[in-house]
Parts: sequence; structure tokens; C-alpha cells
Amino acid sequence: MTTGVHPAWLPTAAFRSLGSRRVRVTGDGPVVATVRAEVAAATAGHGGALVATGPADLELVCAPDPGETDPEAFSVGRSGGTTRVRATGGVGLLYGLHHVVRQGEAAFTGAAPPARHAPRQPLRMLDHWDNLDPHPVMGQVERGYAGGSIFYADGRVRADLSRARAYARLLGSIGVNRVGLNNVNVHRTEARLLTDLLPDAARLAEVFRPHGIRVHLSVGFAAPITLGGLPTADPLDPAVRDWWARTTAAVYAAIPDFGGYVVKADSEGQPGPFDYGRDHADGANALARALAPFGGTVFWRAFVYDHRQDWRDRSTDRARAAHDHFAPLDGAFDPNVVLQVKAGPMDFQVREPLSPVIAAMPRTRLAVEFQVTQEYTGQQKHVCHLVPQWREVLGFRPWGEGGPAVADVAAGRATGPAGGVVAVSNVGDDPFWTGHPLAQANLFGFGRLAWDDRLAPEAVLDEWIGLTFGEAATVGQALHEVMDGSWSTYERYTAPLGVGFMVNPGDHYGPNVDGYEYSRWGTYHFADRDGVGVDRTRATGTGFTGQFPAPWRDVYESTRTCPDELLLFFHHVPYHHVLHSGTTVIQHIYDTHFAGCEEVTRMAETWAKVEGHVPPEVFERVTVLLREQLRCAVEWRDQVNTYFFRKSGVPDAHGRTIH
Amino acid sequence: MTTGVHPAWLPTAAFRSLGSRRVRVTGDGPVVATVRAEVAAATAGHGGALVATGPADLELVCAPDPGETDPEAFSVGRSGGTTRVRATGGVGLLYGLHHVVRQGEAAFTGAAPPARHAPRQPLRMLDHWDNLDPHPVMGQVERGYAGGSIFYADGRVRADLSRARAYARLLGSIGVNRVGLNNVNVHRTEARLLTDLLPDAARLAEVFRPHGIRVHLSVGFAAPITLGGLPTADPLDPAVRDWWARTTAAVYAAIPDFGGYVVKADSEGQPGPFDYGRDHADGANALARALAPFGGTVFWRAFVYDHRQDWRDRSTDRARAAHDHFAPLDGAFDPNVVLQVKAGPMDFQVREPLSPVIAAMPRTRLAVEFQVTQEYTGQQKHVCHLVPQWREVLGFRPWGEGGPAVADVAAGRATGPAGGVVAVSNVGDDPFWTGHPLAQANLFGFGRLAWDDRLAPEAVLDEWIGLTFGEAATVGQALHEVMDGSWSTYERYTAPLGVGFMVNPGDHYGPNVDGYEYSRWGTYHFADRDGVGVDRTRATGTGFTGQFPAPWRDVYESTRTCPDELLLFFHHVPYHHVLHSGTTVIQHIYDTHFAGCEEVTRMAETWAKVEGHVPPEVFERVTVLLREQLRCAVEWRDQVNTYFFRKSGVPDAHGRTIH
Repeated sequence: MTTGVHPAWLPTAAFRSLGSRRVRVTGDGPVVATVRAEVAAATAGHGGALVATGPADLELVCAPDPGETDPEAFSVGRSGGTTRVRATGGVGLLYGLHHVVRQGEAAFTGAAPPARHAPRQPLRMLDHWDNLDPHPVMGQVERGYAGGSIFYADGRVRADLSRARAYARLLGSIGVNRVGLNNVNVHRTEARLLTDLLPDAARLAEVFRPHGIRVHLSVGFAAPITLGGLPTADPLDPAVRDWWARTTAAVYAAIPDFGGYVVKADSEGQPGPFDYGRDHADGANALARALAPFGGTVFWRAFVYDHRQDWRDRSTDRARAAHDHFAPLDGAFDPNVVLQVKAGPMDFQVREPLSPVIAAMPRTRLAVEFQVTQEYTGQQKHVCHLVPQWREVLGFRPWGEGGPAVADVAAGRATGPAGGVVAVSNVGDDPFWTGHPLAQANLFGFGRLAWDDRLAPEAVLDEWIGLTFGEAATVGQALHEVMDGSWSTYERYTAPLGVGFMVNPGDHYGPNVDGYEYSRWGTYHFADRDGVGVDRTRATGTGFTGQFPAPWRDVYESTRTCPDELLLFFHHVPYHHVLHSGTTVIQHIYDTHFAGCEEVTRMAETWAKVEGHVPPEVFERVTVLLREQLRCAVEWRDQVNTYFFRKSGVPDAHGRTIH
Repeated sequence: MTTGVHPAWLPTAAFRSLGSRRVRVTGDGPVVATVRAEVAAATAGHGGALVATGPADLELVCAPDPGETDPEAFSVGRSGGTTRVRATGGVGLLYGLHHVVRQGEAAFTGAAPPARHAPRQPLRMLDHWDNLDPHPVMGQVERGYAGGSIFYADGRVRADLSRARAYARLLGSIGVNRVGLNNVNVHRTEARLLTDLLPDAARLAEVFRPHGIRVHLSVGFAAPITLGGLPTADPLDPAVRDWWARTTAAVYAAIPDFGGYVVKADSEGQPGPFDYGRDHADGANALARALAPFGGTVFWRAFVYDHRQDWRDRSTDRARAAHDHFAPLDGAFDPNVVLQVKAGPMDFQVREPLSPVIAAMPRTRLAVEFQVTQEYTGQQKHVCHLVPQWREVLGFRPWGEGGPAVADVAAGRATGPAGGVVAVSNVGDDPFWTGHPLAQANLFGFGRLAWDDRLAPEAVLDEWIGLTFGEAATVGQALHEVMDGSWSTYERYTAPLGVGFMVNPGDHYGPNVDGYEYSRWGTYHFADRDGVGVDRTRATGTGFTGQFPAPWRDVYESTRTCPDELLLFFHHVPYHHVLHSGTTVIQHIYDTHFAGCEEVTRMAETWAKVEGHVPPEVFERVTVLLREQLRCAVEWRDQVNTYFFRKSGVPDAHGRTIH
């Protein structure tokens, strides 16, 4: 544990039940060593004992089992006063250990036959958008809201990696098994992690290895030119392929369990295969073939769109772009390519429909990408508990009731091969890891949902509260009141009815209704004096609805069936259009914005009650941030309401103040 | 002349007429030495001679004359084949020399009795917003659009001051007699020019001295704390006064002809007397008393307003702020304080009314401040010849026809003591000095108008064209076509009818109609579905009209008499309001935006004709920039037209494309 850093969900107290027992750990290897060290520390702190022989309250056994093929799985059962965790791999044992920790006293009562637990997604990854050198605009962590990088300082991997070690432990405890070490926008210094700074990357790999986590590097598609000095990065050029092969072999020599590459290509100014008249399969496969001999994987991002659009051109629709680019390539990717698809078709907004790419590529390994860092959702100044959003996405059924869910597609349980889930991390060198102490729950929740998409968000939050703050009912109830509905609250006071954005350009914080309305980034709401929204229908709009399979292609096509919360994403409607909820669009805008602010006020009131029940530094930080959240929410409310009142001329039915 | 730098309006060819003559220079002192050196160089280059005795075509005589009290004045006459320039001061002789240079052959033909020429403004100053260390956001030159500073590099005054010397020569030739050396926003390194970096400032003073220019330093009001280590900067505190006295004495020891200070206090986050419950007279006088023993002057900026306004608060009006703050202090400033007042009440917009402060402080020395650097007027990417704007301001009569003009107020010819004119410079280390080669004409024209506010803008432009490009009629006609109306053109395609802003926040370039509409900076247009504009009337608005004397207080008060070009500055009117021009506001918006773009297209066509008649590097630079100007003008046109079409729903009467 690093001094002065919040322990997050692994405080000493969380190990009380386990630590007061007699525990035996059986097995070998680096991750079993981690398990053994955890048990040793816990028992030393709580009066139990790590025993080699004799009776034990808990046995943690890593041993071969012909019936178990998944080294990440574990079984847990209890009989004769002993709780037994078994796994065939050290990492499975680590997961079993933390399962017991989460259960607390319940793990040591009663009896239960052995039950198998295995992750529902094979790949559970966190990407870091960390730069070695601070970027002049984006800073050290792109879209990071919790201080500097825990990995890097002064252009190198940090000398002191105690924070990174504590982080690896936290991730291991929630089942994350991959970490992308650097920003997908690969700048000059960062590129060198692949070559002369490789020893630095290897030091980070050593930090993550004892927790069952393989590391990935984001690489630039033009690396053969920028690092290799070749005249081209054409993925079909033999010299380019040779450069990737040699470079990759060198990486594996330094990091034998290296996970592979993460690539943002032909996206927002990054180089890519388009520069050479090649497609994304050509590009991804070139890297995949360099990785294949070593068991490595390419995560190839599908976030490809024209970021130099002309707002005058109503025919171009950014929402269509990923499907337009990638769906035709289904089946063309090598087996060790995972296509990393943002959950929505735009960019991590508070509300979007599913990306139709996820239902369109049955022969491709897909990973659904979420954003734990709260770029568009309050930047860790606002409480916005996103686990319910991710749960909703993972549980969404692209082919309708009875069909597989998104989690099934990603896990390979639907039509195609297995991918997984990826998210952008929200940590930095802030003492609370995540700026906002309550944003730790998003990181925790991502890991838990990645493990099991069927978990209820409230249950996951219960786990996080219990581990972090203990079992006091006062705190638990208050945190549920503050956090359970916070995603919906954030949605209410920001851009309405799925239309998205309306944020300040560049930093993406705070309201700016027309901020992106005339921009090149393709993010519009088209509000005029009569109505608002984007017509993405097949009948009269951009045709985006047609990228969905039935039934959604038809559900979204009609205002009669389109869900209220996505209405303005799919339709341009008059302000007096009546929602399924019974209110008009304009009145809905007013009502939700007033309601959202009232909810933030209540959040602050509720939080005030936990004073004395949580550590004072946590209380103080959250109190200050709730003040900022309320200020910002009021600004959102007033700007959005005024904007639409000025445009529509429709007064609030309840006569509240609109400036 | 510095190699590779454009000679601006002093190319060798501009000295042909003088340089081919026999010239005698009489007198002594550093500025006469400059005159002698100019003549020596010119005659060496063009076959004439600098003679000590014998007949001369031109005599430049610096000698005492009991009838002439102004050392900046000169007389010029011609008889017996000899042109005679006389002055009592070296600087007057320098101005006389450049008068002869501007006249070219006309100075050496015919005969004329001696005519006296004297500056109409005693203080003619250029402020540099240069930083020693580049500011992370604002760069090395705040609001600079022509590269880095010509004074500073790497946190110090440059080792090589040849650019600064060439600049001093250019300024001397147009009669500028004061230069502010550093940014009015005084950051940490820049503050030290007053103390340990004073030797650096002295080096710059040496550069300007031979051209009759005294240098000023911008100082921070909190300097007694930040530099002096005092616990306060309270202007009435004896220790503070003592610090300023000692510090100022040290400055004069290093720079005996030091001009004085420039102060931005209590403005946009800068410290000031308000921090101590004192007023601006207390603040300015504290510094003035330190300067008085040495003949120094404080330029105290009146640009004071609440930059943390709430857009919901309709009663606060940034336009009122300077008058509210300063008018009550008339008579309270020491005689060596000059109140530096931006020409308009807002901030250097393409169109503003006069700042009413200028008509409200008869017992105060006032300097009218212009902005040669094109912050809001195209950032030296657009041709925007501002001399007509400044001429209009200087000729404006705040008390109506028959009363004194603004230039009279500034010069002390109206009711009060003499001040002058100040402008923010537009130069940098760009090879053309000003980024856009044609923006040199703004720098030249500022100096010429500061000398004589009655000059016609077209005549000033003629002078500039003749000196810079020679007398070819093709070039002259084309440049007049491109430049004469370019201010009006810029006005047409940007914010309409005096309402101002509508620019991108921060960088202030390009359109963003709502960019400042919900901001803290107090710059709003209040457009809704029915109308647009700011009600600043006494009857129903902020009362700003009441800050003007009659007749303007009444002219501006009524839409019947308010000039069209300022209508939206003073009134919120419906889109169908009919202008004096006979068209409606909404149709005016459409018409002017289409017209502005057409004018830019014509500017580019006209410019294309001068190929081969101007240096190729000038032709190429202007051609490229005109392309950007057209792109940006089209963006302005389309965003403004679309914005107002979406709001008003009124179609263009001529059916042109509005997106």
C-alpha cells in the first residue's frame, strides 16, 4: 500500500473475515504467490494464520483438474467447517480469493456444495490513455480527470511503481486480465515503448504479471516509418511486414506474456491503412500475423469516422461510419484480431443506441468498449454511476426478445467467436485514484460486469460499498440514494432525449448547446424554431436505422415505437410532439432539467448525512465536488432551458423561471 | 536592414528622390545622428551626396528657434532650388526627413514658403503585448498574429536586436514617440523587467532612443508584493509608496528618458487598488508620484469590468463598466496620469459606438486606445484595413456637430488636458512583420493618423502604397480596391449591426454565434425566435445610452434615430424591424453576409491581377491568405445565416442557399 493513497475497495478492514481465520494456500507460480502474500498480510493483520498443515477454515488450492479447462475459473464450496476454493490456474485462485473476501463472514457460515465460477467474458481489459510526456492540450492522461499518470513521469516509466503495483492488485481483485499501457493516440515519445523504451514497458509488465494481467501497447500504424525508418507503412509491403515481425519478436523477448497491440488507425487524424489504399482488415492482419507466433492479439478500434465533416452536408452521418467501414469486412480479420467497438455509434454519450456494428459481424471477434473515465459524463466532478448504463448495454438484445444479448455476442456465446469487453480507465495519481472518491465504484463495477454481465448494478454497488466503507447501514443507504440513480440524473440535466453532446468543445465539460452544431466533428442536433433532433430514418433521413437488424430497425424507424430516451437521436420532431410519457418534447426538456437539478440538491443533502460515517477526507472531497456538480447542473439546466425557450417560444407549463 | 525581412514602407527605393540629391544635415544629438545616417545611406545608394558645405538640394537643419516650442515640429519650404527642413529638436528633424521621403520628387520641385508641421497628438504610443516567456495559452505575443516577439527570446531580451532596430526606425518614420515594451498582463518573468531584468529593458531603450521614442514598462499593481516582498500593495501604504519610489528611481538611473508605466489593474483577473478598498485614482496616483520627479507618465487603462458576470443577470452591462468606474473620478488623477480608454465600450469589435468615458472626463488626460493587432478583425489572415475605422472614431463629435471631435479631446484641444492615442502593435518576427503583408498598412496608418487625425484614409493608403510598392498605377489601383473597403467587408460577413462578438471563445477567430452567449464575459446578443439585440436604452434597458452627452444619448435611445450600424448594440428589435436602409433586420443579415463573401471573392480576383507587379513572396503570401479569408468568410456567412434562419424561420427574399 502506498502511503497517503486511498485503499479503494481493498482496505485492511475488507480482509477481516478471511484474516481472522486459519488459511492454507496450495500451489505454485507467480499468481499463487500473490494469493499467498494476500493471505499472509490479512492473517497477520487480523489474528488468523497462514498455515501449511493442520486444520484450516479456508483452503485455497491451485491444482490440476481434468474437468476444468479454464484457468481463470474457480470453484468454491463449504463443508465440515472448511471453505474450499479450487482452481487450475493461479489467476483462478486469485479470483477465488477475492470472491471470498467480497463474501465476508458469509463465506464462513453454513455449508454449500462446490459451485463453479468462471468469467463470462474471456477478455476483460482496461485501456490507459496515458502519455509519457504531457500533451500540450490533452495533458498527461488524455481525458483523464484524476491527475497525472500512475505509470509515467518525465517521459519515462516511473522509478517508483508502488502506485502501479497497488493498481494492479485492485484490477486483479475484480478480474481484469488485460491492460493497455498507453494512449491510443500514440505520440512520439510513447511510440518508443515499442523499441528503445521497451525495457520500461517490461517493468510495467512485471508489475501486472503477479495479478494475472497481460499488458498491451498502443502502437501507431505508421510506426514502420516513424520508428523503423522505412519509406512506407503499407500493410502489404513485405518490408513492413518484416519490420513488424522483427519488432514484435523483440517485444516478446522482453515480455514473454505480452498481450499484443491496440490500434487506433485512420481515426481522428491517426495514420492507417487508408493512407495506402488498403482496408482495415489488411491493416489489422498485418499486425496480427506478427503477433500470432507468440499468441498475441490485436485490438483494432472501430472508431473510424470522418472528423472533417461539413455541417452543411446533411447526408453524412457520423453514427453510420463504423458500420459502413467495418460490416463489409466481416470474415476478413485474422483469428487473433479483436475488433474493439464503442458501445454506441457516436462517442460515449450519456445515452446512445447500441452500435449496430455489434450485431453485424458474426464472423469477427468483437470487444465492446466502454468509458470508465467520465469524459462526457461529468469528468469525475459529478457523481455519475455508470454501471447501470453498461449493464443495460450488455443486456441489450440486438435481435429482440429471445435473441442473444450484447454480452453474448462479445463472449462468443451468440453467433461468432469470442472477444470481450474493454474500457478506458479513470485512474490517475490523485490520492483517491479517480478524483471523485465515488468514481472508484465505476472502475470496480466495470470489472465485476466484465466478469458477469448478469450482476445487478445495485448488487455490485453493495459489494463496493461493503468493501470500501464497511457494512454500516447508514452509509450503504445513503450511497445507494446518491449513486443508484445518478446516471439518470446526469442524463436529465444534460442533452435531452438521446440527442447527445451540447458540451463545450475541446474539454467536453459543461453545457454549450450549439458547441458542436457547426463543427467538423459531425455531432449535431439541428434545433430550429420548430423542432429538434436528427432524422436518421430510412424513410427521410440518413438511413442509420437500417444498420440495425429487426426488430430494432423498425422500432427506431417510427416515432410511434422509438423509445422516448432515444427519440431525438433518431428523429427530428416538433417541440409539441407528444412522448410516450404523455408530455411534449419541450415540456420534457424543461421538466427533466428542473428535476435533474433538484435531484443533485437531494444528493448533496443525503451525502451530508454520512458525515462522521465515512473518512473525513472522503466526506470533504465529495462534499466539495457535489457543490461543483450542483453549480454545473444549474448551468446545464438554465442554458438548455433558455436555449429552447428562446428557440421555441413555448413557456414552461409550470411557470418556473427560465432566463 | 535585417536580411530576409521585408523592408515594409522603408525600402531603398523609397529614398530614391532624396538619395539622388546633395543633402546637408546640420545639428547634433542622437536623433540628428539618425537623420544623418539615413541621408548617408540614401545618397550612397542613389548617387547623391551628404555634403557639409556648398550648394545643397536639401538642407535639414536642427537649430534653436525661439518661435518654435515643440521639439517634434518641423517646417519645410523650398526656394532657390533648395528644400529646407528646420526643426528645434532632432526628432522634429527626423519627422521632417520622412516627410520629404514620403513626398518623393514633389519635395524637389517648384517653390513653397516654409510651412509648419506638428503632431496633432502629443502622445503617440504603441503597446506591445509581448511576453518574455511564451504563455501556455496566449503564446509569446498575446493576441499576436505575426510570430514571436521581436524583442524577446528564451526569457530575455534578444541578443540580436537588429529586428528591434529596424522596427524602431519604422516607428520613428511615422512619428510614434512611445513604445510599451511588454504585455499589460504582466506575468512572472516579465515583471522582472522592472528589477533584475532592468538592464535588458535598458538595452531596448537604447534601440528606440535614436528614433525619438521613449519606452514604457507594463507593471503589475501587486509588484510591491511579488517583486518587493512587502505584505501589501495598498497604494496608500507608505512602505508601498516608498517601494515604488525606490524602484522607479532605479529605473531612471538605468534609462534616463524612461517614459513611465502602463497599468492594467482590477481588470480580467489582474490585481489592482480594489484589492485594498482603494479606487483607481488612488492606484494611479501612487505610481504617478513615483514617476513625477523624473518626468514620467502612468498610462492607466480604463478597461475595467466584471469578467465574471452571470448571463442570467440582464441588469449588468459590460458596456457601462468603464464609465461607471471612471467618470466619478474625473479630476482626481495626478497631472502625469493618462487614462487609456479603449475607443469603444466593449473590446475592439469591428463596430462599436464611442466609449462614453471619452466625453465624460474633462479634467483628466485621456488617451484613446486602438488595436492594430487584428484580434477580432481577422487576425492578420483577413485583409481588414482599419484606418477608416480609426479615422471615424477620431473624427466623431461626442457633443454633436460643431463640438470638438474625439481627436480634439485626446489632444487637449477640447475641454481638458492633453493625452494622446495608443494602439496595440501588430508586429512579430514574421518576415513580413505583420503576418499579412497588407496589415503593414494598419501600422503605418495608425502612426500617420496619430500625427494628423484629419488625413483621409485613402491618402494615407496612397502614401503607404507609394513607399512600399512604388508608384505603379496597376498596384495602386488594385490595392485600393482590395483594401479601402475591407473594414466594411469584414463587418458585413461577421456579427451584424453592431452587436459584436459571435466569435469562437478564447482564440476569437471565426464564427460562433452563441460562442459568448452564456458566458461570464458579458458579451451577449440575446437572439430568440422573435428578435435580436441588446436593449441598452434608458427607457427599458441597461441605461447605457444615458452615459453619452446630448445629442447622442437621445439619438441612440430611439430606434427611429439610432444609426443602422449600431442598432443591435443599443436595441433588441424584431427580425422584421425595418432599417433606415429600407430593408428588414433579417433580410439585412442575409444580404450583408452574401455581399461580404462576394466582396472577398472580388478582392481575390483583383489581387490576382497584381502578379508580377509586386514581389513574388508578397504576392504568394497574400494569395494564400485571401484563400483562407474566403473560406472563413463563407463559414461566417453560412453559420450566421443558418443560425438566424433557424431562429426566425424567415426565408431569404432572394431564395439564396441557407443551409
